[in-house]
Amino acid sequence: MTVATPATAAVILAAGKGTRMRSALPKVLHPVADRPMIHHVVAAAREIGAERLVAVLSPGLGAVAQSLPGVAVAIQDPPLGTGHAVAAALPVLEGFAGGVLILFGDTPLIEAATLLRLRAALEAPGVAVAVLGFRPAVPGAYGRLVQDGAGHLTAIVEAAEATAGQLAIPLCNAGVMAIRAEHLAALVGAIGNGNAKGEYYLTDVVAIARARGLAAAVVEGAADEVLGVNSRLELAEAEAIFQARLRRRHMAAGVTFEDPASVRLSADTVLGRDVTVAPQVVFGPGVTVADEVRIHAFSHLEGAAVAAGAIVGPYARLRPGAVVGAGAHVGNFVELKNTVLGEGAKANHLSYLGDATVGPGANIGAGTITCNYDGFTKSKTEIGAGAFIGSNSALVAPVAVGAGAIVGAGSVVVEAVAADALYLERARPVQKPGWAARFRAAMRKSK
Amino acid sequence: MTVATPATAAVILAAGKGTRMRSALPKVLHPVADRPMIHHVVAAAREIGAERLVAVLSPGLGAVAQSLPGVAVAIQDPPLGTGHAVAAALPVLEGFAGGVLILFGDTPLIEAATLLRLRAALEAPGVAVAVLGFRPAVPGAYGRLVQDGAGHLTAIVEAAEATAGQLAIPLCNAGVMAIRAEHLAALVGAIGNGNAKGEYYLTDVVAIARARGLAAAVVEGAADEVLGVNSRLELAEAEAIFQARLRRRHMAAGVTFEDPASVRLSADTVLGRDVTVAPQVVFGPGVTVADEVRIHAFSHLEGAAVAAGAIVGPYARLRPGAVVGAGAHVGNFVELKNTVLGEGAKANHLSYLGDATVGPGANIGAGTITCNYDGFTKSKTEIGAGAFIGSNSALVAPVAVGAGAIVGAGSVVVEAVAADALYLERARPVQKPGWAARFRAAMRKSK
Amino acid sequence: MTVATPATAAVILAAGKGTRMRSALPKVLHPVADRPMIHHVVAAAREIGAERLVAVLSPGLGAVAQSLPGVAVAIQDPPLGTGHAVAAALPVLEGFAGGVLILFGDTPLIEAATLLRLRAALEAPGVAVAVLGFRPAVPGAYGRLVQDGAGHLTAIVEAAEATAGQLAIPLCNAGVMAIRAEHLAALVGAIGNGNAKGEYYLTDVVAIARARGLAAAVVEGAADEVLGVNSRLELAEAEAIFQARLRRRHMAAGVTFEDPASVRLSADTVLGRDVTVAPQVVFGPGVTVADEVRIHAFSHLEGAAVAAGAIVGPYARLRPGAVVGAGAHVGNFVELKNTVLGEGAKANHLSYLGDATVGPGANIGAGTITCNYDGFTKSKTEIGAGAFIGSNSALVAPVAVGAGAIVGAGSVVVEAVAADALYLERARPVQKPGWAARFRAAMRKSK
Repeated sequence: MTVATPATAAVILAAGKGTRMRSALPKVLHPVADRPMIHHVVAAAREIGAERLVAVLSPGLGAVAQSLPGVAVAIQDPPLGTGHAVAAALPVLEGFAGGVLILFGDTPLIEAATLLRLRAALEAPGVAVAVLGFRPAVPGAYGRLVQDGAGHLTAIVEAAEATAGQLAIPLCNAGVMAIRAEHLAALVGAIGNGNAKGEYYLTDVVAIARARGLAAAVVEGAADEVLGVNSRLELAEAEAIFQARLRRRHMAAGVTFEDPASVRLSADTVLGRDVTVAPQVVFGPGVTVADEVRIHAFSHLEGAAVAAGAIVGPYARLRPGAVVGAGAHVGNFVELKNTVLGEGAKANHLSYLGDATVGPGANIGAGTITCNYDGFTKSKTEIGAGAFIGSNSALVAPVAVGAGAIVGAGSVVVEAVAADALYLERARPVQKPGWAARFRAAMRKSK
Repeated sequence: MTVATPATAAVILAAGKGTRMRSALPKVLHPVADRPMIHHVVAAAREIGAERLVAVLSPGLGAVAQSLPGVAVAIQDPPLGTGHAVAAALPVLEGFAGGVLILFGDTPLIEAATLLRLRAALEAPGVAVAVLGFRPAVPGAYGRLVQDGAGHLTAIVEAAEATAGQLAIPLCNAGVMAIRAEHLAALVGAIGNGNAKGEYYLTDVVAIARARGLAAAVVEGAADEVLGVNSRLELAEAEAIFQARLRRRHMAAGVTFEDPASVRLSADTVLGRDVTVAPQVVFGPGVTVADEVRIHAFSHLEGAAVAAGAIVGPYARLRPGAVVGAGAHVGNFVELKNTVLGEGAKANHLSYLGDATVGPGANIGAGTITCNYDGFTKSKTEIGAGAFIGSNSALVAPVAVGAGAIVGAGSVVVEAVAADALYLERARPVQKPGWAARFRAAMRKSK
Repeated sequence: MTVATPATAAVILAAGKGTRMRSALPKVLHPVADRPMIHHVVAAAREIGAERLVAVLSPGLGAVAQSLPGVAVAIQDPPLGTGHAVAAALPVLEGFAGGVLILFGDTPLIEAATLLRLRAALEAPGVAVAVLGFRPAVPGAYGRLVQDGAGHLTAIVEAAEATAGQLAIPLCNAGVMAIRAEHLAALVGAIGNGNAKGEYYLTDVVAIARARGLAAAVVEGAADEVLGVNSRLELAEAEAIFQARLRRRHMAAGVTFEDPASVRLSADTVLGRDVTVAPQVVFGPGVTVADEVRIHAFSHLEGAAVAAGAIVGPYARLRPGAVVGAGAHVGNFVELKNTVLGEGAKANHLSYLGDATVGPGANIGAGTITCNYDGFTKSKTEIGAGAFIGSNSALVAPVAVGAGAIVGAGSVVVEAVAADALYLERARPVQKPGWAARFRAAMRKSK
């Protein structure tokens, strides 16, 4: 949905320590649907065409900065409030004209459509500030948004300082704002710290703007967009909300989830029409599934492409580089890694195919293993069209099995197999009559 | 619960296109708990003894007709409303005397007990029509059921045309009805299409009946019975409601689900007393489990029978034709297809047993594979009572291992093994001292 | 949280038949998070220092008695009410001075902190009885706790006998009580059975105490602590509440659950900081996981220890005695039983390692199986540091593979492998040109 928007910049506040996460990983890098929280925020800003992006970080968050190519970094040190954080970003915004969004690195659920409405509110005559409001189930300690009869925002009142009448206002301050660039430095510069904590609060810009004869607008967003993540519990809540969004989007497009809540999607999962997903399926990043594919329970896909009409699972593990051809079958306890399974080919049981190419229509017997690693290097296995690999075979790569060849069960393939040939590695069997009976008798006696 | 009911027919309306499903499959064939939606409706009608069944379809829904043996088909073309649809079914009902249920192919959750009450309402003196009502959480746009002091239905008022007082009525029209056969043709024939859409609405029969001095009754059903499915999201909701019903029924009968919400049942799953089902288990169609069986997590059962005291899973896959004997064990990463595992036998690790018979007390070693397919035909493997199959063995079917025989680890069995014999297929091992050290040195140098 | 509490005893009522469970297992032995319900209650009492414990059972519940070492048993026969049950415990409490808790074997969610507050209430001057109250969502049939202006309990009024004013009281009787030992025998002895059922109700002690000039106190607990389990459905509800508690506790301590509701924990699961648990993971009893371990989806752990930085799963099965070293990898379709996997060692695909020791840095190829069982005894496999086991190998225990040795793919190892040696068991391969093409032609012709 990249659309033509008036010039937009975004300041993303992410200097918080996140100590309640009890984690060595910076808070805003904890992922939601495989994407770090702050990347969701950056993506939403980019989606509406934000051309200048600044992340405000504290010292020691270099890992966050490195994860964000194309995003400028401003350092806030020490942290003295949200107003102080925006002030730290001012140098990077030098010369920018348009609207500046103030976002938070720990509210990953904010939607681009909402940012677009927030940005648009700055285009109304006289409006210098637009504030995102939401209606929480329990307003509790949230700041209340006081509006005049015309709908303009007159004040953000902290709950602790609100009158009973103000406490009854259901619309609360989400923290997210947009400010016209031409007023930004002046408004932020006028914020004082004459309060109990001695901090500079960004919410003060509303009163400051009004005192200067500028107007403030309110834009309303959904309560679940502005969830701030400060703990693992809130991270899990954000993940749950985001997963539900993803599932609804796929279902609307024609995907059947037998038990939607048990399916875990990635932010970038692509699923075609009439795809059926059984319960208990996990999609990691980078998966594309074409139309009319069935994915059975307990399957785990990551970095894989599945062509139309294929059948996957149950218990199929598709790892990065797995490419499953049209109508192909990947069955239970089968792992594919960096492997192309040709059209109509089957690998239905207990197999590991790594760094391999399997031709169309080939049949991979149960227990087949590609020995692609010798402890030092990875090597390729090529299996031709229509080949038949007998059960419990090991293919010692690099090795090629020709089209139409048959490998006898239990063979270790250590040389190229000619097309249409039979390859067999097997010792002469021996039977020792009565041996088993004697063995049991001896074992029982020794007990 | 097949009970003696007064003569009953059922008309099942299923002509809708279901475009919101975004699917190549006709809407009413989308399954709930492995059974197409319309089959649930037909099953409920049959359960109360309905002797004549008609599905009203649109052209192009031949797949629906074919899936319903014993159900007559009437074609509605073009679709001009629910009244028009019922009119299309009239020829099939020629000569039928009794009560006619009007059901919908996309409300799969309707319960037989409710239909029984609806049918019974037609036996009251003077009643020609009985309408199913329900109390939705949000009545919103549903038609309201207006009753007189005696409880008779006086009108179905569309929400758009309702007075404030009528909008406050909590009882809404579910769409489902029963009409006495002797009045059906006349009532339906009197429906007009003088409305905005130019359609014939079945709900008009209430007013028509009253105008003719006939009475209409209301029967109340649960809100979750009348959920209509028009999208994949609603399909998932219907599935969730139905699954919860199934789980409650099994728990009441003495089954422990450690985490009920994570277990997926089929409409026909049979579970004995003191069966324990761990989290994350999937039952496909056709599964019967006897008393005191433990089914561990991540198991997947379909078309299988499990005898008393057996232990299944975790990660056990029982496919159609799997028969697990009393006290037998099927362990992790083991797949059984069309295979009988005898009493007390064990297949605990990483095995594929297909088209096989395993005798009582036999032990199937880890990594055992039956080679039941040569690319053209499927063949049988027979393993005798008390046999011991060593790990990583392949049994090339057709083949038989006698009772009490032992197969040495890593063998490929290509001939019958005599009872009590040892079968070994193994080459003479070679050791090359220092070879591994030299190999590593060479590999490191080459890097 | 073992703290210094005034002398405390606990009587645990568990004589009920539990017929609604429809189970051969006594009701209070049904487990919640792998621990029998009554053990949760005993553990809570012990946690606050209860020094004398009595379980009141009915005849035939010997299995319950045997499961509770250190807990005295009193038999109630026949069952004549809760007052009668406590009377049966009096002989065991002879000579005890302090406070006696009256608990129930089927309310496994009661928390130690609540018992501590209940016990503490008995220390107030004049208080002989303290009753646990709770506020159910729907008070319905629960007895109401009537308090005077000073907050003392004046009566427990059964819902059936309550006035409209009393029915409006939100605080209800949980059943759980504490009674001062010096008054216990007299109060319980004074309970009569002049009621419809002819039973002795423990709740009568409140009125009896007040009639004797003694005071009764109320202590409030959470509604989800006092859930009584009488059916499998309630057992599942109790399990769900307890699982949610466990998950919240782990998240607060720094564990990420990507989908908390899909993870099943055991009461004793230990998880370190920055452990990440993917969806659909099952923890059985006795699992300890160190910091920064990743546990991928569909893993199943039981009686296992995982050291820091290890990667487990997806589809890894760790059975009792599995010890996974720091930074080691256990991959898909791999089962470890009574096996130590050394630091940095890898077993990534389709393997069974039982009764084995794997040295640091060793690489276990796909499809490796330890043949640890010959039908009679279990034997050990030792794999040295840095060894490389080729794919599809079988190690016939007892056997040792020396440090740095390499086992060729597909070998069956039946003798000790020297350090740094190559071990190979393989027949000479044969190729039959054109054989596969001829086979196919013949098969097609025969069809």
